[in-house]
Amino acid sequence: MEFQQRVAALTQRLRKKALEVAVLFDQANIRYITGFRLNRAASSILVIDSGGSLTFIVARLDYERAKQDCWINSKNIFFFPEDARDYLKVLHKPLEKIRAIGIEEKSITHYQFSYLQKICRDNLEVKSIESDLSQLRAIKSQEEIEMIRRAAAIADEAMTKVFKIIKEGTTEREVSSYAEYVMKTEGAEGASFEPFLMSGENAWLPQRLSSEKKLREKELMILDLGAIYGGYCSDLTRTFSLGNLTRAQEKIFKVALKAEQAAIVAVKPGRKAGEIDGIAREIIEREGFGEYFSHLSGHGVGLSIHELPIIDRGVETVLRSGMVTTIEPGIYLPGVGAARIEDMVLVTDSGYEVLTRAKREVI
Amino acid sequence: MEFQQRVAALTQRLRKKALEVAVLFDQANIRYITGFRLNRAASSILVIDSGGSLTFIVARLDYERAKQDCWINSKNIFFFPEDARDYLKVLHKPLEKIRAIGIEEKSITHYQFSYLQKICRDNLEVKSIESDLSQLRAIKSQEEIEMIRRAAAIADEAMTKVFKIIKEGTTEREVSSYAEYVMKTEGAEGASFEPFLMSGENAWLPQRLSSEKKLREKELMILDLGAIYGGYCSDLTRTFSLGNLTRAQEKIFKVALKAEQAAIVAVKPGRKAGEIDGIAREIIEREGFGEYFSHLSGHGVGLSIHELPIIDRGVETVLRSGMVTTIEPGIYLPGVGAARIEDMVLVTDSGYEVLTRAKREVI
Repeated sequence: MEFQQRVAALTQRLRKKALEVAVLFDQANIRYITGFRLNRAASSILVIDSGGSLTFIVARLDYERAKQDCWINSKNIFFFPEDARDYLKVLHKPLEKIRAIGIEEKSITHYQFSYLQKICRDNLEVKSIESDLSQLRAIKSQEEIEMIRRAAAIADEAMTKVFKIIKEGTTEREVSSYAEYVMKTEGAEGASFEPFLMSGENAWLPQRLSSEKKLREKELMILDLGAIYGGYCSDLTRTFSLGNLTRAQEKIFKVALKAEQAAIVAVKPGRKAGEIDGIAREIIEREGFGEYFSHLSGHGVGLSIHELPIIDRGVETVLRSGMVTTIEPGIYLPGVGAARIEDMVLVTDSGYEVLTRAKREVI
Repeated sequence: MEFQQRVAALTQRLRKKALEVAVLFDQANIRYITGFRLNRAASSILVIDSGGSLTFIVARLDYERAKQDCWINSKNIFFFPEDARDYLKVLHKPLEKIRAIGIEEKSITHYQFSYLQKICRDNLEVKSIESDLSQLRAIKSQEEIEMIRRAAAIADEAMTKVFKIIKEGTTEREVSSYAEYVMKTEGAEGASFEPFLMSGENAWLPQRLSSEKKLREKELMILDLGAIYGGYCSDLTRTFSLGNLTRAQEKIFKVALKAEQAAIVAVKPGRKAGEIDGIAREIIEREGFGEYFSHLSGHGVGLSIHELPIIDRGVETVLRSGMVTTIEPGIYLPGVGAARIEDMVLVTDSGYEVLTRAKREVI
């Protein structure tokens, strides 16, 4: 079973770092190992010892379901009380004799970290295993790629349905709410982030939220959305309009699309993330819009909506087969409009495969 | 302006604790002070010095909008790069001469905390201001209560519309997706948590997620949902059925409702949270269902979906006018069904006011 392979890969890294256990609090990392879906408001804790034994701790209300549905042996599943000050007490038993712990330094809270130190007392050795988990998760298995394909297809479906309903007078919020509803009716377990449509001046600001603004002709609008399927995220952006654009508006759309397509076809194993970013950025700069492209060119997608690889200036990460990343350069030109086209790209053995398919030329 | 009063209340507490600044990372706390809405995927940092000066740091992509829309003076607004390892660098300037910092111990990450220590070097004094912020936020102003009323009304509307569409064969996921869509079309900025419908055996497990299970007669189902309006959350649960229930099913519904109503009418300033919990729990225990009520009786609601007061066994928090809490005892009886009725209650000067109104008797 794939989950056991993941445990084995992680424990190998623990042993290499001379760590006795890893204590995980990050819900995406925990789902990677347990496969167990929780309501996003819920938390859980996973302790993995370097021999591969697991201790999975969930909220009282998730306990029966975890014992019933999770692949982990029920006798290794425990619960903590939600909304209680001492919810970490349950860690005493698995950790009291431990002297070397791997933690997720970016997500473990100061309170949780201090609590671990209190349990383990003297000479506790702590090392971050944040990048071990990120690196393992960055290379997707066939099973994971299938989930991502499905999440991407749901996003495509929502985008395509949106194209059919937008008209003058519809509000940004109506469009993004509808898009989210479509994703859920198409089988998504949720949206991978709060979807948003930004139009006209909201797009070049950029707003990054849907507002009550009504859609009009003569403006560019950007819709960014993504679905979650089986825990895996998709991420898709299209730029469109209701017509009557100026030449300047058409120009930034074309340049953004050209930059995106050039970066996509450059994706292959062995290339550095920074090089891919450079290809998109160079095209936008050459056309004189460099200062209006104020973000990265892409990011990995998986159980989290932003993960490795980060496709940005100077990033040394080497692309490898099995990685999935977005490519999404954009131009935000005050007084004119904004354009960003974003697709999801799988790094294959020989190059790339684009996973998202919604129509791109829609201005 | 109310935001400035909030700053004043917090800085008074900082001075009392001899802290020079508070560094906030919790997005609900930051919204409490700034009033600034961010996409939920985005983060921000707020530094407040004990004299009341603010430094608001947002992602590069939110910077122009923050300068344009946030009440804080633009010259005190800065940005950090998203998805970059050194995003905390921006804190050097406001913190380098600081020797006493207030932090949110439950939400600041170990990485962030270590970074602050590195900036401030020797003799840094750190105190938690978690409970200062929770206490301030627990007492709602008139303005906040109006937001919560609107969020509650949107939840009521979604619940009422759901009653009209459910029928045999509809799936749990279809119902909760529709409920979320209704909330957004009614003006919610989002759902305050992933809404879920649990029916039949999923309800008594409990599942805490909507599944593909189809709704049937002869079973109880629990729908839990909430909206966000102006940043403020609502939280509402109803139990209903498609008819033909057994007496045992009707019984647990009636007991859960009775326990809820008894706890609600007991709400008034001066009462302890634990007493309110005790009233609900005692009714359920007296009917023999005590062991099937495995959670708290309620929780505060505001900018976060769970905040003070926590209405649970033995909690000493004293209820005060302006607090808003849910009351939501439940019974989960394997083989029979589950029932939970949840309303939002405002503590008034003389007692209570129920903020949610959707029909309760719907089995």
